Amino acid sequence: MTELKGACVIGQSGGPTSVINASAYGVIRTALDSNVITKVYGAEHGIKGVLNDRLFDMDAEDAKELELLKYTPSSALGSCRYKMKDPDVDDTDYRRILEVFRKHDVRYFFYNGGNDSMDTCNKISKYMQKVGYECRVMGVPKTIDNDLFGTDHCPGYASAAKYIATSCMEVYQDARVYDTGMICIIEIMGRHAGWLTAAAALASEYGAGPDLIYLPETDFDMDLFLADVERVYRETGNCMVAVSEGIHYADGSFVSEAKTSATDGFGHAQLGGLAALLANIVKERTGAKVRGIELSLLQRCGAHLASETDIEEAYMAGKAAVENAVAGITDKMVAFERDTVDGHYVCRTKLLGLTEVANFEKKVPLAWINADHNGVTHDFIDYALPLIQGEPPLPKEDSLPRFARLKKVLAE
Amino acid sequence: MTELKGACVIGQSGGPTSVINASAYGVIRTALDSNVITKVYGAEHGIKGVLNDRLFDMDAEDAKELELLKYTPSSALGSCRYKMKDPDVDDTDYRRILEVFRKHDVRYFFYNGGNDSMDTCNKISKYMQKVGYECRVMGVPKTIDNDLFGTDHCPGYASAAKYIATSCMEVYQDARVYDTGMICIIEIMGRHAGWLTAAAALASEYGAGPDLIYLPETDFDMDLFLADVERVYRETGNCMVAVSEGIHYADGSFVSEAKTSATDGFGHAQLGGLAALLANIVKERTGAKVRGIELSLLQRCGAHLASETDIEEAYMAGKAAVENAVAGITDKMVAFERDTVDGHYVCRTKLLGLTEVANFEKKVPLAWINADHNGVTHDFIDYALPLIQGEPPLPKEDSLPRFARLKKVLAE
Repeated sequence: MTELKGACVIGQSGGPTSVINASAYGVIRTALDSNVITKVYGAEHGIKGVLNDRLFDMDAEDAKELELLKYTPSSALGSCRYKMKDPDVDDTDYRRILEVFRKHDVRYFFYNGGNDSMDTCNKISKYMQKVGYECRVMGVPKTIDNDLFGTDHCPGYASAAKYIATSCMEVYQDARVYDTGMICIIEIMGRHAGWLTAAAALASEYGAGPDLIYLPETDFDMDLFLADVERVYRETGNCMVAVSEGIHYADGSFVSEAKTSATDGFGHAQLGGLAALLANIVKERTGAKVRGIELSLLQRCGAHLASETDIEEAYMAGKAAVENAVAGITDKMVAFERDTVDGHYVCRTKLLGLTEVANFEKKVPLAWINADHNGVTHDFIDYALPLIQGEPPLPKEDSLPRFARLKKVLAE
Repeated sequence: MTELKGACVIGQSGGPTSVINASAYGVIRTALDSNVITKVYGAEHGIKGVLNDRLFDMDAEDAKELELLKYTPSSALGSCRYKMKDPDVDDTDYRRILEVFRKHDVRYFFYNGGNDSMDTCNKISKYMQKVGYECRVMGVPKTIDNDLFGTDHCPGYASAAKYIATSCMEVYQDARVYDTGMICIIEIMGRHAGWLTAAAALASEYGAGPDLIYLPETDFDMDLFLADVERVYRETGNCMVAVSEGIHYADGSFVSEAKTSATDGFGHAQLGGLAALLANIVKERTGAKVRGIELSLLQRCGAHLASETDIEEAYMAGKAAVENAVAGITDKMVAFERDTVDGHYVCRTKLLGLTEVANFEKKVPLAWINADHNGVTHDFIDYALPLIQGEPPLPKEDSLPRFARLKKVLAE
């Protein structure tokens, strides 16, 4: 293998997580320390930063501030949701990327994102191979949704899961404080995969979580749901429910979009989200005090509840991407495989072909969902619990988070 | 002063906070260690537990579990929202309380709550004096709303403020990650007082918080609000807003209840809360991507972000209530006064007459609200910052919160 000298670009794409910056830091730190990578650029807003030739000079950043990226949620370089066209249909973007790569002698491209980002990564990789421009392309996985194919889990998932489990445990304490009873419906992210919503079961495992959990992996039946809720409420005087934002009826239509559903009894546009919708339906049916809570953006940016395991693995993924690329590997995504050593969870990196992972979704196995489709089995707990372990040493300033403050000096 | 031997009852009332159990623990621990207090009872669901003669034997609890109350949110004994009638109108409840007190030889009554609870406390105290039953009655303040009269601040406020500030800082990172811009509206608790919403300014102080803050202390003007938001969005490409749930028009009507307001352009019942309502109005006006986030119950039970200062002060308030009562004092509420010693914030307890504090509300001083009524001055930061300091040693089990598990053994 010949040593490939040249600059690298790291870009972040898709929805933020609590640890995507830890992965970026893994890339940046390892690249800055490499003798082969000559310059380290951060693309502003993912691939858009390459297209617009807006690249930040990472060498210009203070090392201490860069290190704070490990504990800074969201995408410090800026993110994008930009779907690249097929290069056989329209190669304009690809020619532009090649032009910018040539201009800055970019020989390494690291893209940190989810399914769509791996698709972008794959297309760029294949294009560069086709036109004979030597550029090693590596995907670094990230998604709170945990739906990337071929990897045991994704960086970003565990921290969101820990936020969800902890918040459910706290809300559980709160939502049954009066003797009058309450039904509490918590809406959790995850349009197609129920990994995040399933994390609410961690709270129940520790004695203080939802009685009922509904994932998008199975069809939602409003009548069965209402019967479940009424039963628990009648038996215990309270009921706590976790629902995925992506729950859908058997015909595939999202419950959240059932604007004029006969079931909801209102027949007008929803202003609130799914939690508000279900809360109103349940209230109408039961007469109980009902509260809908949407965890919203908080669950994906709640870095104060990040899992140290997640942070370290996210960093490791970024580091592995650079090390493998420098060693001559290209066209791969870093993935995780889990092992058990002396009874302890261990996570190792492996590499998957970009074509393999792009655009495939991994869902919660149906075998991990209970027969009534209103909860998960212990297999899920065994899977998720090791991932959320560890409290990171969060940098604080006056007891508030001290996030990285980057200078963002544009190249040239 | 004669030593008064007898049992004590501690009750919790009103909405939960992250530290009301720390105050309860201050009462319980100090009472258990007292040579004068013969038994320590916890009332189930506040004064209702006394009326129903459902008192838990605190001596039966494991000391370690009791200690975990310091880090357990919500009201471990159960809470209530029960307004006592005026004893001159109907003394049924009071006669029943006297009966239960006599039965268990209760000579000390500690009530942990907000404005309404101090009213309850006051009425019971005055009734016992009137009928000549010697019972020392002490109020222990609690409210996330921080609206209790006569005290520098209330236990519970600081932890909620810290949750709000931290969450705003994290959402700030998330809400501006794309190059397309976003307006984010965060709804914060506080029906009549803006202390909690003002806490969002702590995030802005540390460089990552709301651009605009609206408190219920001033009248809300929808046109001025929309002009503010449009201006910030136009100038910076993003806008983050914190609004109190209690914002109201000049005629006193709550913005959240303006179901058919011409301004909202929808004319139908709101299902979501204020954040959803404002998000829709702003979206219609600006065409921008808008997200409404309601912090909901999370802000008052988010013990994982509790302020250590708040926990220790809450404990101190409970402890002071018992110590003063044992020393012969009655008919008072424990309050806080702040001092500065060697440039450092110091908090001391003082005592206020129950009649003084019951039913009065303390609001954010108008002098601390800016001229445009869309932000707070630095006086507020100086006030709030010392209160949120310190990270408590949160007990964890498998990286999830380990809350107190009480046996709740009923007396008799």
